[in-house]
Amino acid sequence: MRALVYKGPRDVAVMDMPDAKIERATDVLVRITTTNICGSDLHMYEGRTSMPPGRILGHENLGEVIEVGNAVDRVKVGDRVCIPFNVGCGFCENCERGLSGFCLTCNPGNAGAAYGFAEMGPYAGGQAEYLRVPYGDFNCLVLPRDAVEKENDYVMLADIFPTGYHATELAGVKPGETVVIYGAGPVGLMAAYSAMIKGASLVMVVDSHKDRLALAESMGAVTIDDTEDAGVEKILELTGGKGADRGCECVGYQCCGMHREEVPNLTMNNLVKTVKATGGIGVVGVFVPEDPGAEDKLEKRGAMAFDFGSFWFKGQSLGTGQANVKAYNRFLSRLIERDKAKPSLLVSHELPLEQAPEGYRNFDERKKGWTKVVLKPGKSSPG
Amino acid sequence: MRALVYKGPRDVAVMDMPDAKIERATDVLVRITTTNICGSDLHMYEGRTSMPPGRILGHENLGEVIEVGNAVDRVKVGDRVCIPFNVGCGFCENCERGLSGFCLTCNPGNAGAAYGFAEMGPYAGGQAEYLRVPYGDFNCLVLPRDAVEKENDYVMLADIFPTGYHATELAGVKPGETVVIYGAGPVGLMAAYSAMIKGASLVMVVDSHKDRLALAESMGAVTIDDTEDAGVEKILELTGGKGADRGCECVGYQCCGMHREEVPNLTMNNLVKTVKATGGIGVVGVFVPEDPGAEDKLEKRGAMAFDFGSFWFKGQSLGTGQANVKAYNRFLSRLIERDKAKPSLLVSHELPLEQAPEGYRNFDERKKGWTKVVLKPGKSSPG
Amino acid sequence: MRALVYKGPRDVAVMDMPDAKIERATDVLVRITTTNICGSDLHMYEGRTSMPPGRILGHENLGEVIEVGNAVDRVKVGDRVCIPFNVGCGFCENCERGLSGFCLTCNPGNAGAAYGFAEMGPYAGGQAEYLRVPYGDFNCLVLPRDAVEKENDYVMLADIFPTGYHATELAGVKPGETVVIYGAGPVGLMAAYSAMIKGASLVMVVDSHKDRLALAESMGAVTIDDTEDAGVEKILELTGGKGADRGCECVGYQCCGMHREEVPNLTMNNLVKTVKATGGIGVVGVFVPEDPGAEDKLEKRGAMAFDFGSFWFKGQSLGTGQANVKAYNRFLSRLIERDKAKPSLLVSHELPLEQAPEGYRNFDERKKGWTKVVLKPGKSSPG
Amino acid sequence: MRALVYKGPRDVAVMDMPDAKIERATDVLVRITTTNICGSDLHMYEGRTSMPPGRILGHENLGEVIEVGNAVDRVKVGDRVCIPFNVGCGFCENCERGLSGFCLTCNPGNAGAAYGFAEMGPYAGGQAEYLRVPYGDFNCLVLPRDAVEKENDYVMLADIFPTGYHATELAGVKPGETVVIYGAGPVGLMAAYSAMIKGASLVMVVDSHKDRLALAESMGAVTIDDTEDAGVEKILELTGGKGADRGCECVGYQCCGMHREEVPNLTMNNLVKTVKATGGIGVVGVFVPEDPGAEDKLEKRGAMAFDFGSFWFKGQSLGTGQANVKAYNRFLSRLIERDKAKPSLLVSHELPLEQAPEGYRNFDERKKGWTKVVLKPGKSSPG
Repeated sequence: MRALVYKGPRDVAVMDMPDAKIERATDVLVRITTTNICGSDLHMYEGRTSMPPGRILGHENLGEVIEVGNAVDRVKVGDRVCIPFNVGCGFCENCERGLSGFCLTCNPGNAGAAYGFAEMGPYAGGQAEYLRVPYGDFNCLVLPRDAVEKENDYVMLADIFPTGYHATELAGVKPGETVVIYGAGPVGLMAAYSAMIKGASLVMVVDSHKDRLALAESMGAVTIDDTEDAGVEKILELTGGKGADRGCECVGYQCCGMHREEVPNLTMNNLVKTVKATGGIGVVGVFVPEDPGAEDKLEKRGAMAFDFGSFWFKGQSLGTGQANVKAYNRFLSRLIERDKAKPSLLVSHELPLEQAPEGYRNFDERKKGWTKVVLKPGKSSPG
Repeated sequence: MRALVYKGPRDVAVMDMPDAKIERATDVLVRITTTNICGSDLHMYEGRTSMPPGRILGHENLGEVIEVGNAVDRVKVGDRVCIPFNVGCGFCENCERGLSGFCLTCNPGNAGAAYGFAEMGPYAGGQAEYLRVPYGDFNCLVLPRDAVEKENDYVMLADIFPTGYHATELAGVKPGETVVIYGAGPVGLMAAYSAMIKGASLVMVVDSHKDRLALAESMGAVTIDDTEDAGVEKILELTGGKGADRGCECVGYQCCGMHREEVPNLTMNNLVKTVKATGGIGVVGVFVPEDPGAEDKLEKRGAMAFDFGSFWFKGQSLGTGQANVKAYNRFLSRLIERDKAKPSLLVSHELPLEQAPEGYRNFDERKKGWTKVVLKPGKSSPG
Repeated sequence: MRALVYKGPRDVAVMDMPDAKIERATDVLVRITTTNICGSDLHMYEGRTSMPPGRILGHENLGEVIEVGNAVDRVKVGDRVCIPFNVGCGFCENCERGLSGFCLTCNPGNAGAAYGFAEMGPYAGGQAEYLRVPYGDFNCLVLPRDAVEKENDYVMLADIFPTGYHATELAGVKPGETVVIYGAGPVGLMAAYSAMIKGASLVMVVDSHKDRLALAESMGAVTIDDTEDAGVEKILELTGGKGADRGCECVGYQCCGMHREEVPNLTMNNLVKTVKATGGIGVVGVFVPEDPGAEDKLEKRGAMAFDFGSFWFKGQSLGTGQANVKAYNRFLSRLIERDKAKPSLLVSHELPLEQAPEGYRNFDERKKGWTKVVLKPGKSSPG
Repeated sequence: MRALVYKGPRDVAVMDMPDAKIERATDVLVRITTTNICGSDLHMYEGRTSMPPGRILGHENLGEVIEVGNAVDRVKVGDRVCIPFNVGCGFCENCERGLSGFCLTCNPGNAGAAYGFAEMGPYAGGQAEYLRVPYGDFNCLVLPRDAVEKENDYVMLADIFPTGYHATELAGVKPGETVVIYGAGPVGLMAAYSAMIKGASLVMVVDSHKDRLALAESMGAVTIDDTEDAGVEKILELTGGKGADRGCECVGYQCCGMHREEVPNLTMNNLVKTVKATGGIGVVGVFVPEDPGAEDKLEKRGAMAFDFGSFWFKGQSLGTGQANVKAYNRFLSRLIERDKAKPSLLVSHELPLEQAPEGYRNFDERKKGWTKVVLKPGKSSPG
């Protein structure tokens, strides 16, 4: 089969690879019809992880079931399924509590597994023609009848829509509250979208990319261009000096200061300043336990100069970690089905799989207008 | 009236001061019969705060109501009351949600007020013969009939019992879970006690003071002497390598390394290591937005080199801040009334108010056996 | 002052009554500018309660503060305020937990007080020129600057908007879920509106009044005309045979069968049938402990032939009771302020206070198009 | 294999039956070493269900794994396991949310499956030498090393300990609260035990069997003999006239009045009376959608004359249904492992499987002292 393979820093290629196939009785085999490039793919693309050359990338996958193992009961050949980026077993101490992002079975010695991801187990990615899905009955979300027409919506359920939603859950967003979101990349935009779905009275989105802020504004958010670093002041002004009820971190450790240098504690400390006393903060931007290539001495060892004193004094709370996609995808799917949510609004580019390297290059350069790239393995020309 | 007055770093004295009195129609006047010295009084005693000389200390207070303002409806003259260290109004946006530790009325410009405390409003402390209690109907917990015999139990409801309990709430302790508690001072011991009340299956207490660990052990905790810094390993061993379900920080910014030097991030980073992935951490040890006198450069500006990467990767959550005493005192009071809790087990010394300076000196020196000092304003000799 | 007075079954009149005035230091005096007739006013109007003749009705009140008692700190003369129908003290065991609808102080011997209401304490209603508000700092919601232009929106915060919202809270509505609402009166419509604000994927409203269903439909709900009693089937069909995730009862004990006779268990048993196994049901329609005038033998003593076996077998849960308005009004107010909610869409008639009897008569007759009547005490002719 | 077979009303026998065996790749085969008779087995024993003759009873099972299907990953041959009475799939909409008592896969057309139970799917019971466990990785709780010595404790995790605990969860019991429990059968006693584990300040147990009340008292509960129907009064007296914070129904539809006649609404209406306004009620006693053999006309069709008016007026809430055992068994298991819980205190009789009919007969007659019967399939004489 054809698949997008990581060959080294900023070097990916679409190549012939052995076909994915059923390996265990609980597996499901999916012919991928839509698969996205994610911001976290860029961590690997840029060579900042331990990802070995030769592996297939891609953890935002949707397709058609073409074969099931003989212990699979629920999922049927022909089903259209969206596959959470988390690989979970369904029966460990974490999965049984809905914490499928921290499965203790699928990546032994760690909590959490994913497709095509560094340090997240041996699972091949789905930027390919076929994907093997372990524990298929647990991991496949079977889609409703309108799945084919709305592939670009439903594929967002694999990661960024639930991840953005997770940020608002970790922050504790409730109807009528004000929310500040740092980061207007795809996840930040989905967090803003989720906050609106939940009935927030005011959603503020902070970033310095004008094209992304424009998208946030078109969704109904109040946007704050942080280029001049005046974001904190503006948020306080918009919230009567008190700060937002809730805050979401959707940037991660590679966040940048005014001069594009990495300032890993910038968004976290700004959130402490712009969220009210007793407010909640949800962090879905990726932070890593060590980052040997970092400039910052603390960051090398995964630490951050965090304004803990102010954080404590304000009695804030903090929730973190990757999303447990299964905790949200079923209900978010219904919003798509009933036309109450349309996350495909993020899609800027739809490319055939063969053009994936071009997609990676442009997305990595944060080239203007390249918000979200959707790949179509089955097609030979741009959709 | 006689009262304990802060005169400067490590200098307190019992002096004549103007009588506390009813100032507003919603005030209650209390004759103090029991009042404790708290670990956080030591921050002021040691001169590490902005506390001005001349103010009366004391925020753990219990006594008898001797007068009520004419708008007071519930509290009656003669009632025995325990007074939360928080001063709340009862009607602001935070108090109405039970967040009385972050009252927006009683300390304008800040969230949260307290008696006899730096930066927490103008309220006189209760290490005195009399105390004025603002918004008396909201702030007084009226005690049951056995209040007089159990004063040393009920007085713990003013602060340390609810504060220890709050640590377990912030951490999310549930029946059957394992809990690690850093700090075996009065608050840490009350956190351990609270975890047991909540049905924890294993409570581990970490400290380096042998007398305090002995007290923790007598309460049923597994104790870990961290003198040799082997605590992390031992906790992992006790929890099958996985870490505790929940962790509590009951030490604060003045925590110490092996050689008694302050290492402000020590307990927090150890908690990240010893709490499981997806686990919760509650922080009730005090951290401050700035600490100009600190040695550590980050600490001077209230920051901490926090292992944020590991924290995020493990998907842990963090709750912080001072306790909303009213959220817990009523129900904890019932445990005392029904003889299901006896927090006076902490009391090591009972002194008349006149000997308060001696109590401060010994407690500040962490003198062996001085766990908790209770002052008795009405008495002229040791009880 | 002029006020609407209950004189006996279906007999109310606007009369001269003694002016409301400050009676206690914690009181606030409000000049009423908008006050609604509520569906529960009709229980009294129809003579089915113990309401004695001579009392002023009205518990949905909004106006301008014209005087405050000397122990009032937060509310100022000139503030525009909306007053929850619940009278709470702010300091009892229930109020301190946010359960202000079950205040133990304001209606001694019972839990819960209200203005102008049978069995809910001695408080005069606000269908009058002036209203005395006890514990004014606790009970007044101070409105933002746009209060004057949006009086008909903000007044809904006194009761029906929070009550409808409460139904969805009791039922546990979460984003993406399906919700069935029995009753398209003002409260049912506000429940539907609240479910939409919370991000429900499908809101179904059941009633037999076509004008009300039309209003529900215009709000975005799927409507079900239950005239032919086919509602249950239709709801199951719309939810794939499974039932709705959540259900709301917004009808109460006077609910009717096909032939307009009262069938008190009809909506509850239909909810058991139409809500899924493990689903939640919220009941804000009023049920009473005894109803001597009822036809039904069980209803006379406040009982109902409830399908408890099916309810238990499906593992459903049930939350009940009147709304704790203060738990919601502040945050719902922000949705109005930010133009994200417009509850005045319910208002069908705006009358001067003098025409209140006409409003009662038409509303009681469920006259077509009389959805919600708003009274304007200050005005002499219809607005 | 030998197994206890239902032959007709009050007629069971231990007979030779075909061996249980692995049927699907996800199955686990268990050699049963301990299996209990449950109160709900009596519903079938007494012929009040649709149970067909010829089926093996028994849903409280513990044993040793002797074979696993080839898709089983976690459970190993030789593991000691306790098996929840619920049969769940682990991947349906309910199981993925932890609602494994309402599995949508294992009993098609219904929510919830169980071993050896009427209307709960085709699964054979475990009062036998061997048991087939479907979806073994999901359904088996692997026990710790002390499993063999504490079989009579761990077996209680199959049903009655989690079911009693579930009652306290549904009721919302929190530390310091007062709890009233109707029913001192095994489940009621486990509810009382759970309330104590959770730190209740007062646990009141109501029943009319003196031997059971004595057991409750020995556990630390305050007992109330309801023979003379004075229970309501006594509970109000013990709670200062206010009622208990929480209540648990552990009796079910066959509850009895003073003269031993069935009065199906007796406990529910007494709970409405004895639980405070705003309090929570959890119902784990079994109620059925229809009971054709009942005397009571309402009960025949599964209805109950429920005091809905008082219930609503007090703003109480109600949670119901069978326990999701997996939601609790892991953490309760740790309490047994750490010697913090000893549910075997209930066991009155330990019999070899061959004497099961005798156990049924005595337990069904509520013979004095027959609290809980434990069967030992492997043994030929009483343990």
